[in-house]
Amino acid sequence: MIPASLLNGLRDATRVLAVSHVKPDGDAIGSLLALGHMLGALGKSSVLSLNDPVPAIYRSLPGADAIVGPQRDAAGFDAVIALDCSSVDRLGRAYGAAFAHLPLLVIDHHITNDRFGTINWVAPECAATSQMLLLLADALGVTIDQPMAQCLLTGLVTDTLCFRTNNTTAAVLAAGMRLLEAGGNLTTITENILEQRSFNVVRLWGTVLDAAQLEQGVIWVTISLAQFEACGANGDDGSLSSLLIRTEGADISATFAEKLGESGAAAVECSFRARKGFDISGVAQQLGGGGHPAAGGCTVPGTLAEATAKVIPLLQQARTNGLSEP
Amino acid sequence: MIPASLLNGLRDATRVLAVSHVKPDGDAIGSLLALGHMLGALGKSSVLSLNDPVPAIYRSLPGADAIVGPQRDAAGFDAVIALDCSSVDRLGRAYGAAFAHLPLLVIDHHITNDRFGTINWVAPECAATSQMLLLLADALGVTIDQPMAQCLLTGLVTDTLCFRTNNTTAAVLAAGMRLLEAGGNLTTITENILEQRSFNVVRLWGTVLDAAQLEQGVIWVTISLAQFEACGANGDDGSLSSLLIRTEGADISATFAEKLGESGAAAVECSFRARKGFDISGVAQQLGGGGHPAAGGCTVPGTLAEATAKVIPLLQQARTNGLSEP
Repeated sequence: MIPASLLNGLRDATRVLAVSHVKPDGDAIGSLLALGHMLGALGKSSVLSLNDPVPAIYRSLPGADAIVGPQRDAAGFDAVIALDCSSVDRLGRAYGAAFAHLPLLVIDHHITNDRFGTINWVAPECAATSQMLLLLADALGVTIDQPMAQCLLTGLVTDTLCFRTNNTTAAVLAAGMRLLEAGGNLTTITENILEQRSFNVVRLWGTVLDAAQLEQGVIWVTISLAQFEACGANGDDGSLSSLLIRTEGADISATFAEKLGESGAAAVECSFRARKGFDISGVAQQLGGGGHPAAGGCTVPGTLAEATAKVIPLLQQARTNGLSEP
Repeated sequence: MIPASLLNGLRDATRVLAVSHVKPDGDAIGSLLALGHMLGALGKSSVLSLNDPVPAIYRSLPGADAIVGPQRDAAGFDAVIALDCSSVDRLGRAYGAAFAHLPLLVIDHHITNDRFGTINWVAPECAATSQMLLLLADALGVTIDQPMAQCLLTGLVTDTLCFRTNNTTAAVLAAGMRLLEAGGNLTTITENILEQRSFNVVRLWGTVLDAAQLEQGVIWVTISLAQFEACGANGDDGSLSSLLIRTEGADISATFAEKLGESGAAAVECSFRARKGFDISGVAQQLGGGGHPAAGGCTVPGTLAEATAKVIPLLQQARTNGLSEP
């Protein structure tokens, strides 16, 4: 299952640059930190690098302090490992031309992965890249210690919304069980990371949800900059879409959040969710974004009205496609 | 762990009345149906009885059609089994005087259980009564088939909010894994039961959440009858409390829902949630209700203003108590 070339590449490496995607989430950071611990256990050195700073909710994870910004000097490195990343542009500035001569090992669970590495281990049957790293640790004979367990559990739990997504298999629960047995603390993750939201966001929901619309199986809300400001909230991060997808009669959900794009032009950040049997990844990709069948997003130029006029029909078509498939 | 007297009582029984609590939830119905399957596998007959009708979302569970209302005739029965019930009054009319001469076997995971049975197996270390029935099946040598797995998984997943509550241990995930391996379908439960809510409830949230209050670590909302009616919603079922407890700065959450009590007097249905380290079960019991440290509720007479004036200080005291404990 794990390509032999990947295991060999890892065994041959002595100093690794490990990177993950822009706007890092729990699986990006959890898998990155766990890989750092794992490489250390194998007697190798590593530099963990991200395009963006580590979000506050992940800064207490063991080793998070060691994550650095983009590196320019490839001297001394003999391999790059890219985690949880479906295409090279998602790495941002964390992977640059200076490293292009080194073997690039890709470890990712996204079905949309375009195999941009020298060696690619893509396992869409895994619900998180962190789940893949547990398999990797086993293959390399690395014992899962408590810090590693906490990092991997964070990735597994955040990517599955704590075992709720429809790719939660018996293997996912088995991985969770092993990580709990190895000392992982589930409550820390569910209470402090997974659904932690500010009081301002709660008020934001109160402000926008009564204008939610549900048509042809697609439910959506819009959030204007003025509404964000009135509630003191500065973002939504897709949690409204996750909330809305549980509405009776909705097969696809969407949130449209107004923002100022580059150079101050109007733009709208779109977040999509779909129930099992429906696939929004095509719409997200078509609009320049990405994601899984069940969750994804994109940013489109224009006003809220322009964005909904453009995107809702595409989502309704995706819903129709899902209904007509066996 | 399982009392020998309970195993013997079960082995001796030939025809069992199995009951669970009023306002049945996923664990009440899931464990009741699984017990029925289990008794059948052991060559025993059973009648499954509840005070209230089976809610629509549980009617597709295997065997749900066989659940009947309160029974008056004890002829032919030789034992009663009460599931997921912390005190006898929670059984409502499903357990009456006609059955008082029979052995009453209590199987429950609530820490507040008052041991009202002839034989009591109370396992607060289990996150659901359904988790206990998996142990019981093992002890009795019953193989978990697909229908039993689906019923037990429904109980386990609904009581833990799909492995999110702070009593989710490695043993809980191990139980979930076994039930998936036995053919349980997790997606059916998360998508159709767990957080399924009507579009009217979404609009209700939009109506009440912008008036949420957060003081001294307690966050709460009130819902008037007029607000229920304006949204076409007829209940909340604690889901708002579960949502609110994830707010930064909140250790305890509460929802106060106005309703017409018996004889038309004003009353307020209260639903509480608490983070790990805090305990709302004392407040709920003090006000005539019940629950766990992390989740519970009660009904208090009076208006919304009277209820919040009475209950919020008690919750704030419970929060202070939690802060001062080691």
